[in-house]
Amino acid sequence: MTPRLTGEGDIVRKIEKIFAGEQSSFLRVGMGDDAALCRAGRGQETVLTCDWFLEGMHFLRDKHPPDAVGWKCLARAASDIAAMGGAPRCFLLSLALPANCTGKWLIGFLLGLRRAARRLGCRLAGGDTTRWKEILINVTVIGELSAARAVLRSGAHAGDLLYVSGTLGEAEMGLRQLRRERGLGHVPKACIRKYLYPEPRLALGQWLALNRLASAMMDLSDGLSSDLPRLCSQSGVGARLEAARLPRIPRIDREDGLKLALHGGDDYELLFAVRPKNAPKIASKFRGLALTRIGEITREKKVLLEEGGKSSPLASYGWDPFRNCLGAPGCGELRR
Amino acid sequence: MTPRLTGEGDIVRKIEKIFAGEQSSFLRVGMGDDAALCRAGRGQETVLTCDWFLEGMHFLRDKHPPDAVGWKCLARAASDIAAMGGAPRCFLLSLALPANCTGKWLIGFLLGLRRAARRLGCRLAGGDTTRWKEILINVTVIGELSAARAVLRSGAHAGDLLYVSGTLGEAEMGLRQLRRERGLGHVPKACIRKYLYPEPRLALGQWLALNRLASAMMDLSDGLSSDLPRLCSQSGVGARLEAARLPRIPRIDREDGLKLALHGGDDYELLFAVRPKNAPKIASKFRGLALTRIGEITREKKVLLEEGGKSSPLASYGWDPFRNCLGAPGCGELRR
Repeated sequence: MTPRLTGEGDIVRKIEKIFAGEQSSFLRVGMGDDAALCRAGRGQETVLTCDWFLEGMHFLRDKHPPDAVGWKCLARAASDIAAMGGAPRCFLLSLALPANCTGKWLIGFLLGLRRAARRLGCRLAGGDTTRWKEILINVTVIGELSAARAVLRSGAHAGDLLYVSGTLGEAEMGLRQLRRERGLGHVPKACIRKYLYPEPRLALGQWLALNRLASAMMDLSDGLSSDLPRLCSQSGVGARLEAARLPRIPRIDREDGLKLALHGGDDYELLFAVRPKNAPKIASKFRGLALTRIGEITREKKVLLEEGGKSSPLASYGWDPFRNCLGAPGCGELRR
Repeated sequence: MTPRLTGEGDIVRKIEKIFAGEQSSFLRVGMGDDAALCRAGRGQETVLTCDWFLEGMHFLRDKHPPDAVGWKCLARAASDIAAMGGAPRCFLLSLALPANCTGKWLIGFLLGLRRAARRLGCRLAGGDTTRWKEILINVTVIGELSAARAVLRSGAHAGDLLYVSGTLGEAEMGLRQLRRERGLGHVPKACIRKYLYPEPRLALGQWLALNRLASAMMDLSDGLSSDLPRLCSQSGVGARLEAARLPRIPRIDREDGLKLALHGGDDYELLFAVRPKNAPKIASKFRGLALTRIGEITREKKVLLEEGGKSSPLASYGWDPFRNCLGAPGCGELRR
């Protein structure tokens, strides 16, 4: 049995041991001091983001292996760096734990976190640890990108074409399977994997930014119907989505696939706008990842869904933490 | 009555409104995008830290005005930047709130936070908001300092003199007063103010770093008896404290004053080591703030307290979140 740790110092030493030797030219001073020191390369900007990952709200202790909690808390924060076109470099981990999670759970969590950190090229730079009734996680990721190449949410113009990476709704489908909801039918393994171990689209984001191919970009964390209006609002535009074009899960009920694609959260795919002149440079795949044109940006500040020749306003049924909760009873399909 | 906000978007808009116009040459893109963009000046390094501030663990909703919660969550994180010798530039706010705190409480909190942000020269750069049963706060502060001037915990040598700023134990005394503990006698107003509205010692830290006067430095958040061993451990040294020299609260019981100075938390004063040749440059005051020599660094890796001609090992009775809790019953004096 893995012994539980009894003081903050023990936990910090365990973290330091598992992440030992994590240094880089970007991160000059990491754990063990009052603060971390880092330096962006010449001509680079620093990009910063933070994300909550809370037990019962964003994950369930009995459904999510500790390894997946470690992976996902970093991957989802790094997805915001991808959405700007940046490369993650280091992260701060704020961890609050019940005493009974300081043994085996903590080890599993740290190993999953280290796997994600290595995969994403992102070093642990420090953090804060405390005790709490539930597991509370907050991750800050610090990245780099070439100065003036960041892709903001605010750059979309009427006439730009809207693209999305990957397949939409897979993570939500994976969550359903994890909750063993009834009448699911066949759920592809890829859905569960995507829900537990999302892969932020870093290479795609960096390629779009470096080549100035996207006029606006964001990552899809709360669902297309909640996130697209945010991009439109920041750009002062609207959008028209074509239902038939949405990249949905194959071989499931058509209507359900559309709902999942529109409202399902946690996909961490990239949504981006492209000027028509740049559209020929966007192939249908980027390093094996599907890129799909799903609609266009409009002058009229509405988000419309076109389906079967009819156009109607798209309601935001994605994730809102003030309305939804993963662990709450009655919070079912699509967390609406 | 201030109406409660019902969705994440409303809360983000409220925060954006209160912090509108917060930009700087350091912070290029702030709130409203996937991530923030910033750039350190030429020849500057970036310094990073994060801190939990949790209801019931670090503050009590019925004892701490929302304004003080806002002030303190930023001030204590900025204190880590002071401890490296840096200047805070911007911060990320992660906030989780019960629905009944999204009205008046939120406004009070944001106004206190804004006051601290302006005082510390630190802009809101972004964050994450979600719902929770209690108030959970995590603050990441990003600062700047001249390259290679950071003062680490690891630079102390045997023979260095140990200094501390301000008076020790005041914040702990302020907490006692706030909890209306019995038999307190007279508690100076300054103690309550220091507990609720700590002032990170930014100017002092920057002066020491820029002039290379401190060989090692840290801020005192958990209490001298817990924090000094950390500095010693990082430097591979020990220390000898002189009880009679500790800057303690005047006009209270002598023994109690010593306990408070040794173990009281939340003071956010700076503890620093100075080579003997630099000692003449350390005056007894820096811009009105007392600087006191309290002992020296030793080769022997022990922390000793000298009192009345006797020397004994100093036990760490400061704050440890895995052993203490502000809100827990039976967690009394000095949170031992």
